[in-house]
Amino acid sequence: MGLEFELVATDGAARAGVLKTPHGEVKTPTFMPVGTQGAVKCLSPEQVRSTGSGMVLANAYHLMIRPGAHVVAGAGGVQRWTGWNGPMLTDSGGYQLFSLAELASVSDEGVEFRSHVDGSRLFMSPEDAIRVQNALGADIIMPLDDCVGFPVERHRAEESVRRTSLWAGRSKAAHAREDQALFGIVQGSTFHDLRRRSAQELIETGFPGYAVGGVSVGEGTTLIREIVEATAGLLPEDRPRYLMGVGPPEDLIISVAAGIDMFDCVVPTRNGRNGWAFTADGTVKVKNSPHARSTLPIEKGCDCFACRNFTRSYVRHLFNAREMLGMTLVSLHNLRFFARLMERARDAIMDGAFDSFAREALARLDDTKSP
Amino acid sequence: MGLEFELVATDGAARAGVLKTPHGEVKTPTFMPVGTQGAVKCLSPEQVRSTGSGMVLANAYHLMIRPGAHVVAGAGGVQRWTGWNGPMLTDSGGYQLFSLAELASVSDEGVEFRSHVDGSRLFMSPEDAIRVQNALGADIIMPLDDCVGFPVERHRAEESVRRTSLWAGRSKAAHAREDQALFGIVQGSTFHDLRRRSAQELIETGFPGYAVGGVSVGEGTTLIREIVEATAGLLPEDRPRYLMGVGPPEDLIISVAAGIDMFDCVVPTRNGRNGWAFTADGTVKVKNSPHARSTLPIEKGCDCFACRNFTRSYVRHLFNAREMLGMTLVSLHNLRFFARLMERARDAIMDGAFDSFAREALARLDDTKSP
Repeated sequence: MGLEFELVATDGAARAGVLKTPHGEVKTPTFMPVGTQGAVKCLSPEQVRSTGSGMVLANAYHLMIRPGAHVVAGAGGVQRWTGWNGPMLTDSGGYQLFSLAELASVSDEGVEFRSHVDGSRLFMSPEDAIRVQNALGADIIMPLDDCVGFPVERHRAEESVRRTSLWAGRSKAAHAREDQALFGIVQGSTFHDLRRRSAQELIETGFPGYAVGGVSVGEGTTLIREIVEATAGLLPEDRPRYLMGVGPPEDLIISVAAGIDMFDCVVPTRNGRNGWAFTADGTVKVKNSPHARSTLPIEKGCDCFACRNFTRSYVRHLFNAREMLGMTLVSLHNLRFFARLMERARDAIMDGAFDSFAREALARLDDTKSP
Repeated sequence: MGLEFELVATDGAARAGVLKTPHGEVKTPTFMPVGTQGAVKCLSPEQVRSTGSGMVLANAYHLMIRPGAHVVAGAGGVQRWTGWNGPMLTDSGGYQLFSLAELASVSDEGVEFRSHVDGSRLFMSPEDAIRVQNALGADIIMPLDDCVGFPVERHRAEESVRRTSLWAGRSKAAHAREDQALFGIVQGSTFHDLRRRSAQELIETGFPGYAVGGVSVGEGTTLIREIVEATAGLLPEDRPRYLMGVGPPEDLIISVAAGIDMFDCVVPTRNGRNGWAFTADGTVKVKNSPHARSTLPIEKGCDCFACRNFTRSYVRHLFNAREMLGMTLVSLHNLRFFARLMERARDAIMDGAFDSFAREALARLDDTKSP
């Protein structure tokens, strides 16, 4: 048995659901912490669990390169190997290959690229990406897609849609495990008609879930929102919708409003490692000197491990003294902040009050007033 | 009310006891994880607690420089500020000043030195060291001592003993908090008669506990053992005995045999950050390629969080991928290993079987066979 998705409530376009995976249930909307190399940076699986995060993302490309999918498979799969033992999603690495653009060349066969570890020449076909992810064993897997940057000329975006659809079909054919759900990824850059074409072609092939890809590649927040609003409504109501690589809390709220169910982004952990804390009232930069003697927690009223046990004064000291625990604490807080934002959004949807929730949350998040 | 020490059992010179502090009880012999800057490196207080460690060490010199003792005091003291909330000991930093020898000059007034942070000129008298530690508020505090390296000429070792005794008296006079126990520190380098003189002078002044200092400064294992064996027996039976800065498991076992109750050393956490794991059968270097597909835990049969949840294959990957969680897991395991070694030593003492325990443990620790 594989993935099931139950829609529990809707409020406008916003949706509350439950994602049932072989490794447990996840309430949606949900934010997935990113564990690219099989670990959420600076945190143990226990610590990630303590934030209320339900599902974790890992990157098939990275794990294929190091330590090799066979090593992970031999250890009982990515959930067991990483000690997460809960719902997991692997991304194929299409986005990573896009990020390494100078190192890669794309044709209909697949992507030829150089390893970011040792520079060796490698080739990944859509079938390879599935084979690797079948070996890793995550609950949700993503096909290789042809991800383009921004801005991009229309003919290249058209090619990306055509190739991504072609690869989606080949991926579905290659997919060999019923306990894993293979999603389709909508491309089309900022061209609405191409997004529509991409969605239609994928829906024809048929997938248990759909992702909005090729977003957060440099197009900026306004265009992200436009893409999401134009694309989410094209996707089947009864399937989970995943917005890849987004994003700041504001974008999450807008995207939930547009009907997105799943998110992932490095921003809570990356900012955490820099000492930038997300709070309902905007960013707190714990390294700043106004916090030197502050006995406040990172965020007042927050129920995370960091806020229950430590003051800004101490967390600031940890960053000044280059103690890794500082990065751990702010990363942990940020993940709790993102998980709580999704919990509150879900509650608001269940209460039919998402609109006012979103308006209020966005007003408070306004960063212009933060220390 | 301050420190109480109860001797529960002896076996030869080895002792099992209970140290009762205002922040809780600690069974002895005990090993204290080192949190120089107010944090045990790469671990949260919860994670340190999970290793069975009872008391944590912080460094007054470091906290005085950054963030300043007043900041820590203002936050409710070092136990609360660091979130440890358990028994704590602060070292004055005499050893650190010795480590920064080129930056420091010693006279009977105190130590003049340059800050390791910003190079500014600073001065610390024995009274200053107590004032700082009274502000920090640890359960056990250490006087400033005149710590010499190895090898050292007899006249310099004699001076170190004289000055350390002088400073011990001034420290006791300056000490202003009954809830904190100020220990005396025995110096004398490798000169047995000087160690005896130092112990006698300190005992005359009178302290609730005694430390063997000036050890682990380059004299090597054989001399450490000789010093400890010659010195421990000179100290009052009814007071805790603390061997500062030692050390590898073998030295701990030998020193418990000689009558030492307390230890601290950076070796479990420092080696942990390098991927060197302590096990009952010697060192395991988890980064080495034989562990690439190993589904064994770091140490078979170990009950620590790392060994219960992760394989060597995964831990090795974390180091290869430069994921901080690797350092966390091996540090955590190593602290559990040290805590367990002390628990087993204590059990053996209670059973009157310390001798055979020590012989067996030392034979197994022999590193020549390890991968």
